[in-house]
Amino acid sequence: MSEHVYKIVELVGSSTKGSDEAVRNAIARAGKTLRNLDWFEVKEMRGHLADGKISHWQVKLAVGFRLTD
Amino acid sequence: MSEHVYKIVELVGSSTKGSDEAVRNAIARAGKTLRNLDWFEVKEMRGHLADGKISHWQVKLAVGFRLTD
Amino acid sequence: MSEHVYKIVELVGSSTKGSDEAVRNAIARAGKTLRNLDWFEVKEMRGHLADGKISHWQVKLAVGFRLTD
Amino acid sequence: MSEHVYKIVELVGSSTKGSDEAVRNAIARAGKTLRNLDWFEVKEMRGHLADGKISHWQVKLAVGFRLTD
Amino acid sequence: MSEHVYKIVELVGSSTKGSDEAVRNAIARAGKTLRNLDWFEVKEMRGHLADGKISHWQVKLAVGFRLTD
Amino acid sequence: MSEHVYKIVELVGSSTKGSDEAVRNAIARAGKTLRNLDWFEVKEMRGHLADGKISHWQVKLAVGFRLTD
Amino acid sequence: MSEHVYKIVELVGSSTKGSDEAVRNAIARAGKTLRNLDWFEVKEMRGHLADGKISHWQVKLAVGFRLTD
Amino acid sequence: MSEHVYKIVELVGSSTKGSDEAVRNAIARAGKTLRNLDWFEVKEMRGHLADGKISHWQVKLAVGFRLTD
Amino acid sequence: MSEHVYKIVELVGSSTKGSDEAVRNAIARAGKTLRNLDWFEVKEMRGHLADGKISHWQVKLAVGFRLTD
Amino acid sequence: MSEHVYKIVELVGSSTKGSDEAVRNAIARAGKTLRNLDWFEVKEMRGHLADGKISHWQVKLAVGFRLTD
Amino acid sequence: MSEHVYKIVELVGSSTKGSDEAVRNAIARAGKTLRNLDWFEVKEMRGHLADGKISHWQVKLAVGFRLTD
Amino acid sequence: MSEHVYKIVELVGSSTKGSDEAVRNAIARAGKTLRNLDWFEVKEMRGHLADGKISHWQVKLAVGFRLTD
Repeated sequence: MSEHVYKIVELVGSSTKGSDEAVRNAIARAGKTLRNLDWFEVKEMRGHLADGKISHWQVKLAVGFRLTD
Repeated sequence: MSEHVYKIVELVGSSTKGSDEAVRNAIARAGKTLRNLDWFEVKEMRGHLADGKISHWQVKLAVGFRLTD
Repeated sequence: MSEHVYKIVELVGSSTKGSDEAVRNAIARAGKTLRNLDWFEVKEMRGHLADGKISHWQVKLAVGFRLTD
Repeated sequence: MSEHVYKIVELVGSSTKGSDEAVRNAIARAGKTLRNLDWFEVKEMRGHLADGKISHWQVKLAVGFRLTD
Repeated sequence: MSEHVYKIVELVGSSTKGSDEAVRNAIARAGKTLRNLDWFEVKEMRGHLADGKISHWQVKLAVGFRLTD
Repeated sequence: MSEHVYKIVELVGSSTKGSDEAVRNAIARAGKTLRNLDWFEVKEMRGHLADGKISHWQVKLAVGFRLTD
Repeated sequence: MSEHVYKIVELVGSSTKGSDEAVRNAIARAGKTLRNLDWFEVKEMRGHLADGKISHWQVKLAVGFRLTD
Repeated sequence: MSEHVYKIVELVGSSTKGSDEAVRNAIARAGKTLRNLDWFEVKEMRGHLADGKISHWQVKLAVGFRLTD
Repeated sequence: MSEHVYKIVELVGSSTKGSDEAVRNAIARAGKTLRNLDWFEVKEMRGHLADGKISHWQVKLAVGFRLTD
Repeated sequence: MSEHVYKIVELVGSSTKGSDEAVRNAIARAGKTLRNLDWFEVKEMRGHLADGKISHWQVKLAVGFRLTD
Repeated sequence: MSEHVYKIVELVGSSTKGSDEAVRNAIARAGKTLRNLDWFEVKEMRGHLADGKISHWQVKLAVGFRLTD
Repeated sequence: MSEHVYKIVELVGSSTKGSDEAVRNAIARAGKTLRNLDWFEVKEMRGHLADGKISHWQVKLAVGFRLTD
């Protein structure tokens, strides 16, 4: 029962609003094609600048999901 | 005077709202039993997913406090 | 001939028995859907605790396999 | 055209409000003296504590900008 | 409910038998004084040598447990 | 518009000629099955030796591509 | 006999004199409340500056001590 | 004589030709405004992709130069 | 007496049986030519796969031994 | 008041006497051209050898200073 | 058969021509005194600058070779 | 001329006096059997504790020396 196997995919979410929102956007996209999403881990936080301001935040994250047998 | 010694403890705070709130929750809990809290440092940011959404954020942080003599 | 390209996937295997067994479980699962598995590398070793004991070991590993042309 | 050279400076922004705001404060300050800001990357997230609460967040970031010829 | 706070302690377990056993020994010792043990993570694996053989394995691990309110 | 989500895959390219060529080979292979390739990052550079010479270079790289909605 | 378990605590020692003295100060403080101190490891070396000079050195160290049964 | 002080600046050079050329471009640009360049160190190697090909290589490097008194 | 100097060599042991056995094999080989072996530290754990199974485990370790005067 | 922005510069100080002195030399040099120096952090400690002896120690450090508005 | 033990040595190769050539020079030198060279891994890429140009590239690499019984 | 090849060995020096002295002791020992010592780099700083005091400092360092042709 506890001998599950999980797969991890790496995504970069972006948002004009902030870092947490960039994470949420990536998770939302992952949920469209993957089932059994279980956890995420932030790997890198960065962003693009335009006209001296943050045009969008970019957060790289690992997302783990349980593989079905 | 500046020859203080500090101790560092590692905590994981969680929150359903966002990453900053998870940090605040951990600091609030630390303040219940430790005095002279001085600084914190974020070590890891992750979270649990349920039904394709973030059920709670989890932030691991180191918290430093000054030891009294 | 030596100009192959490999892909790496990241998996987490779990086992109630021990760390090596968690690796073997992940490899066994990978072998169900991927061909030409070539090597693995352990990235992280952890586990869940229940009632003060290890309920299952979890080993994160990268698995490399050769892409066919 | 794509053979630009970029310089990276390291800044620490602080804020009483939260981590994203600390990033924005650092970028705003950078924009006062540097042109062609292009990207940033968060390197470290920490903060000072006073009276058991976060008095201000501190985020260290690398900021890249394009050098003009 | 999910807004728990966890504390992490770092331990080194040792064993003459093998690396997994060193982990189990550290967990067993942690369970004597700490409640609500939740997870562990291996940080370092090493050992002492005597007469050209492994006299004991030493595994450094972080152990997380839930703080009660 | 800037709220795209990207996926990252990890590949190892190899080449008998040199390190840059190993990168190019991996990118060429990625382009056969993936669209909207956006960036790559070198993670590791190594190679196999035979008869005291480099028989082929192996470069591990992360390749990011934009996910379509 | 060799199946001891050790605990590691993280401290920051400070000194106006130099880096080694900051280590010694932290160890001296640790010895006031902990028994069976066994080893230390320097994790970070930093310091505060005032009037363009080092006002005090700060060394973060991990200190390991044997737990009694 | 050997008690020199050096400063390190971080640059990203780019090139359509290859990774070494991206390094050379960054050094050439540094030489326009800095004197006594002494060494460089590659910190990161990446690149942009367009139409499934490498449009330009980007190499982040630290460049050290001796400060005059 | 305590002012000994130690040398560290890096080895990769392999085994068809498991990760601990790969460590033991490397130590056994080291003991054939080196005296005063004192400690080891695991640096990397990986392995080769054949027919979808682990054909052998490979563990990279650093082995320290005391130099005689 | 606490919403200051700091800049970090990287320096290498050298000394024939020892590691702490190399740090002090770098700080002294920084103080000639920069104001509001606030903290330093040691990043790397190395040195040059000549005739089998240490000819000079070299310490790379990050130095943070507060930017004025 | 697969239970070989490998030793790893660390070398720095240099070249006036480029980074790959620095690797080849180190391997060529290793081949003069070591047999059964099996693989290499690049650990660090740097170089010396003179007159604002790269006077030579320096690549640190680990070289693994199989130990005979 | 600049196409030299260097070898790096890893040593741990110890001293009852302090961290710099531990480095010097390791270099002195290296100089007994190796020629053309060129540089060193500190990799780790630790020590043993006895009776609540530092019994000896231990510094792990990499030492580079030029190989003759």
